[in-house]
Amino acid sequence: MSFSLPHTGEPSSFPTVRTAIVGASGYSGEELVRLLLAHPYTKLVAATSRQYTGETVAHVFPKFASHPLAKTLRFCEPQIELLTREADLVFLALPHGVAAEFALPLLAAGCRVIDLSADFRLRDAAVYREFYGHDHPAPGLLAQAVYGLPEIRRNAIRTSNLVASPGCYPTSILLPLIPLLRDGIIQSRGIVANSLSGVSGAGRKAEIDFLFVECNESLRAYGVPKHRHLSEIEQELSSAADTEVVIQFIPHLVPVNRGIATSISVTPVNAVTDASEAEQLHREISASYAAAYRNEPFIRILEGKALPDTKNVVGTNVLELAWRVDIRTGRLLVLSAQDNILKGASGQAVQSMNIMCGYPETTGLP
Amino acid sequence: MSFSLPHTGEPSSFPTVRTAIVGASGYSGEELVRLLLAHPYTKLVAATSRQYTGETVAHVFPKFASHPLAKTLRFCEPQIELLTREADLVFLALPHGVAAEFALPLLAAGCRVIDLSADFRLRDAAVYREFYGHDHPAPGLLAQAVYGLPEIRRNAIRTSNLVASPGCYPTSILLPLIPLLRDGIIQSRGIVANSLSGVSGAGRKAEIDFLFVECNESLRAYGVPKHRHLSEIEQELSSAADTEVVIQFIPHLVPVNRGIATSISVTPVNAVTDASEAEQLHREISASYAAAYRNEPFIRILEGKALPDTKNVVGTNVLELAWRVDIRTGRLLVLSAQDNILKGASGQAVQSMNIMCGYPETTGLP
Amino acid sequence: MSFSLPHTGEPSSFPTVRTAIVGASGYSGEELVRLLLAHPYTKLVAATSRQYTGETVAHVFPKFASHPLAKTLRFCEPQIELLTREADLVFLALPHGVAAEFALPLLAAGCRVIDLSADFRLRDAAVYREFYGHDHPAPGLLAQAVYGLPEIRRNAIRTSNLVASPGCYPTSILLPLIPLLRDGIIQSRGIVANSLSGVSGAGRKAEIDFLFVECNESLRAYGVPKHRHLSEIEQELSSAADTEVVIQFIPHLVPVNRGIATSISVTPVNAVTDASEAEQLHREISASYAAAYRNEPFIRILEGKALPDTKNVVGTNVLELAWRVDIRTGRLLVLSAQDNILKGASGQAVQSMNIMCGYPETTGLP
Amino acid sequence: MSFSLPHTGEPSSFPTVRTAIVGASGYSGEELVRLLLAHPYTKLVAATSRQYTGETVAHVFPKFASHPLAKTLRFCEPQIELLTREADLVFLALPHGVAAEFALPLLAAGCRVIDLSADFRLRDAAVYREFYGHDHPAPGLLAQAVYGLPEIRRNAIRTSNLVASPGCYPTSILLPLIPLLRDGIIQSRGIVANSLSGVSGAGRKAEIDFLFVECNESLRAYGVPKHRHLSEIEQELSSAADTEVVIQFIPHLVPVNRGIATSISVTPVNAVTDASEAEQLHREISASYAAAYRNEPFIRILEGKALPDTKNVVGTNVLELAWRVDIRTGRLLVLSAQDNILKGASGQAVQSMNIMCGYPETTGLP
Repeated sequence: MSFSLPHTGEPSSFPTVRTAIVGASGYSGEELVRLLLAHPYTKLVAATSRQYTGETVAHVFPKFASHPLAKTLRFCEPQIELLTREADLVFLALPHGVAAEFALPLLAAGCRVIDLSADFRLRDAAVYREFYGHDHPAPGLLAQAVYGLPEIRRNAIRTSNLVASPGCYPTSILLPLIPLLRDGIIQSRGIVANSLSGVSGAGRKAEIDFLFVECNESLRAYGVPKHRHLSEIEQELSSAADTEVVIQFIPHLVPVNRGIATSISVTPVNAVTDASEAEQLHREISASYAAAYRNEPFIRILEGKALPDTKNVVGTNVLELAWRVDIRTGRLLVLSAQDNILKGASGQAVQSMNIMCGYPETTGLP
Repeated sequence: MSFSLPHTGEPSSFPTVRTAIVGASGYSGEELVRLLLAHPYTKLVAATSRQYTGETVAHVFPKFASHPLAKTLRFCEPQIELLTREADLVFLALPHGVAAEFALPLLAAGCRVIDLSADFRLRDAAVYREFYGHDHPAPGLLAQAVYGLPEIRRNAIRTSNLVASPGCYPTSILLPLIPLLRDGIIQSRGIVANSLSGVSGAGRKAEIDFLFVECNESLRAYGVPKHRHLSEIEQELSSAADTEVVIQFIPHLVPVNRGIATSISVTPVNAVTDASEAEQLHREISASYAAAYRNEPFIRILEGKALPDTKNVVGTNVLELAWRVDIRTGRLLVLSAQDNILKGASGQAVQSMNIMCGYPETTGLP
Repeated sequence: MSFSLPHTGEPSSFPTVRTAIVGASGYSGEELVRLLLAHPYTKLVAATSRQYTGETVAHVFPKFASHPLAKTLRFCEPQIELLTREADLVFLALPHGVAAEFALPLLAAGCRVIDLSADFRLRDAAVYREFYGHDHPAPGLLAQAVYGLPEIRRNAIRTSNLVASPGCYPTSILLPLIPLLRDGIIQSRGIVANSLSGVSGAGRKAEIDFLFVECNESLRAYGVPKHRHLSEIEQELSSAADTEVVIQFIPHLVPVNRGIATSISVTPVNAVTDASEAEQLHREISASYAAAYRNEPFIRILEGKALPDTKNVVGTNVLELAWRVDIRTGRLLVLSAQDNILKGASGQAVQSMNIMCGYPETTGLP
Repeated sequence: MSFSLPHTGEPSSFPTVRTAIVGASGYSGEELVRLLLAHPYTKLVAATSRQYTGETVAHVFPKFASHPLAKTLRFCEPQIELLTREADLVFLALPHGVAAEFALPLLAAGCRVIDLSADFRLRDAAVYREFYGHDHPAPGLLAQAVYGLPEIRRNAIRTSNLVASPGCYPTSILLPLIPLLRDGIIQSRGIVANSLSGVSGAGRKAEIDFLFVECNESLRAYGVPKHRHLSEIEQELSSAADTEVVIQFIPHLVPVNRGIATSISVTPVNAVTDASEAEQLHREISASYAAAYRNEPFIRILEGKALPDTKNVVGTNVLELAWRVDIRTGRLLVLSAQDNILKGASGQAVQSMNIMCGYPETTGLP
């Protein structure tokens, strides 16, 4: 459900940008289809899917069938020539490694690219090789790619031709921590992040581990101690802290379709040993978040008793944020909740598109 | 996600209607809040909730907090004077029996009323007493109430001041059966309807039976053999068939949040004993549905291999519909799926409001 | 949880039967492993799984790791020579078509066989071809196979070398209907059975349709109008009624791990038009079930207000049963609930094994 | 499913102990009923429930109906006189505060008591007041109560008359950490424990927050930063470390019926900066757990690639345990999974009963 925020002084219409989605049948690709069909200023001209080539969007995704375009738009093969001829801006919803191979010719032909894979999120090809186990397919593009976290890099996104849109885990950790590190409120060492992820985060892949019966009534950590996304999380935290940040990250798979809840334990720079110091820290954090996010339409800071709950953000592009000073341990707890497919993937990518195209940033985003 | 359907030749804006919701903290009431906050042509002026009086909508329902009005609108006591002064049209999302008590003074004061309870769905007060166990609180209003199934009674809804908006089970059975009965394709006897309902259908009530642990990993029939909603289902089926229809209805509670899947076994009027007769019946049904629903934006007829699946309609106001001729038994199977809170409650009520107010019927509906 | 029923006058120990499971890594095979590890009178000597050959049971199924044998027993290739040498009785938990190929040499070598597939459930190879789409691989064995519903064919099972153990849907329909058909209480025409099945019924297969995200929050009918299991259901119903029975069967997939709830609408032989006739029918049904099942340890007849609920039988070999006379329609509703992997598959197979081996029938069954 | 472990040199039968359960209709009480009905050496003589007084166990819990005793045993009022006359050992499954009021007269009359509430878990009445908000109702009993973690205090439990059986969160944190603290492998500072709990942990209480719709598709932290169970967790960790331990604990509610997964981040005493030091730490931990738990039937240490998964322990009294050295951060991750109602409540209480009564410790426990 989309609530249009008031935008004053804006033009009542905008130039239409022609968009395409490469890899449109996974969960992120499907959500991009949904968002772009509903977007008032862009036209979805192509959606590729090797598996569904020739079938209409309405047939593959009956839930979109009430949109007129869904009945005529057919999934096609991912041909570069077609994409560069028809589209101004291309979303890549592909596995890492594959995405870079598409980005090169698309950029060369003048398309703008928003990549939802990990291929352009790291600035250092050596780190990519360490975490992804193979050489980077297009290291020459790393320097020009922008890490697409709109709340942090809005200006760079605006003029970029290659946006590396962050995934769900990084977003759930970076948005809560970056202001606090940047403002010197928390230490760069000793950060422990625990995340609970819905099963759509594993993608639409036919694997036994993600069958209903294997996931339902199951709670399990996985990917410890060195999950691939640590590479980009630590790159961005280090950038905010202006010093190297290494964190502990423990992802868990839990039986919901969508949503990520993340709980992060950090150490304040100034020791907290009594109620007065706790109150002081509380004020500093509140001010830091207010400065960073006061006007952000997609960040909701919970200041009262409420704690983030994925059911309050699923279906929206909003990230909920709260914190608690733990005077007993002298540590601080920061919590976030988001929809892993919207703010954690496709919603965030469309948010970047809105910025790149000069549209109001909330356009078409629930 | 709302896909705007093309409306040609319409005015670009409409007169604003002031709306209120009485009983806004149940699941149907909450969904009305969501829909009316997002509706471009109406203004939500009051939402009542004894439990949450004085609290803002944003506080009680954090998921709506990004809408500006949610931060200022506070739940209030259900005072008739306030409602009649501030609102042009009032939605009643109250238990049966209570709703009628509100409808009387609201109508007397000139408000239009859309009632989501069962209070005005029956034309015969004796039937109400039989199924609901108490005398009807306002029998004098029954004659003027319109049964608010837009696809069936659009014209009567347009000019009505009192719309009795049908609930989820009746909608899931009536929309599939009414065209077939009206066109004389199926017999009025021997109809057996099985429904599977998500737990939100039980309402936001603190009862042991609806705790997570009591519903999760549980499948159970209930309310057999004489569920209350049979009264309105049979009234409307009888009206379509122009003869008395008595059906068997078996509702089941299953562990999903939202959605109703209904499978209805019926007997064709013309016997089906071979493939040619089956094909003939298939064509008749197809023609009957096309005549009834071809231009209906919220009915999706599945003609190929696909069967209705609640996950394709949850979050939308769409009802999916399919059928299978069972040549082995000579019977016909009709299947539907819908979101029990949208097409099965609040979405349908807003659809009626759009009709009553002269707005495009799909306005604000996903 | 197993409650030992009192068995008087029984020997305190029994001869050990050596058992093997072919196809032990599917959901039914896994449950057989669980039951046979815990069974006091049998020894599990082999469990085959091409996928897990060489790995211990404890490694593949950590939940069984506390049983000493699970740490030493390794999954092996399904070699006939090994099986016939080591085992007295072999369970086949294989896809249809494949099972028959194993049964032939095992029987020839003197093993007793309990087959959980559909391969030996039909007496007529032509019906098999009609419903399964290929010729029966061992039609010569059909005459000697016993349909392994213990409550119905206990004596034949006792002396059989080839038991065709029924699956979940047939069990959920046959046990409620057979006594009523046999006793002439219900008509053989106009039977409509709706079933709700947990996802484990689809097997441990890596298919997109059964991923968590595709099943969770989804309700859908499938396999209509001619589900394969209709062939055996109608064969057994016809046998009980002593006339041809053709029924309508509508299976649904719902998001629980385990459990089947079945609701069956039938027409009584004697018309029910008033309360006295309803009470008469009620007594006849009660007597029919009492005669059939009074002493059955795994059938629980609910005579009061309670209705079957899968959560009361999951984890046990019990089938719950209830009925309601629907005086309004003159029809009768019969309802059952069971664990689809226990009473609907592996538990029932072990029940047959207990009978074949002369053990108390409830041995090792929860 | 219970696998009997081999117990050599034991008597083949044991004196019968008469047991009673006070508060038998909550989730822990219900599980005690299940375990005690199935227990071969004890006789369940009374189960109290104000709500269900006079109804049989079989009626209230149909899933137990196949046990003969369930058909005759009726829930009764919690009368001290009855309990002390009929029972030798009484389980208290009551809210904190209430449990102590029952323990006093029961102990005075010579009954042994196993209390599943928090009332006797703390040694210091002042800590009780701090965390539970009221004075301890029976501070004089605190000195004699034994904290009933069998793997840690088996000898004290054996001779105790008052066992304070630990709950789910403490068990999931204490069993992994106590050996490592006791052996000086990890630091007492900087411990961060995140737990994911199934909804049965909230009890069978009719509250909106625990309705199916409010929990399903929801992930949320709660009870931070000072959950009540921290008091006993820190007491026991401090005892093991022989120094004060204060930890950070972040519980989350997730949509499963049963199970707790806990992930604990700790700092090794010896710095880990390279692979060799990591390997050294790994060996120390392995040796520490082996020394502590090698012969424990209910602790399963995962040494290979597998990580704890609640679906492998739900329905059993087993706690799974694994660890990962995180060489990047120099920290250690310890993970556990258990059934919150069995090892986390009623199973553990029966384990203590077995010890107190001289039965094999695994008797009657799955």
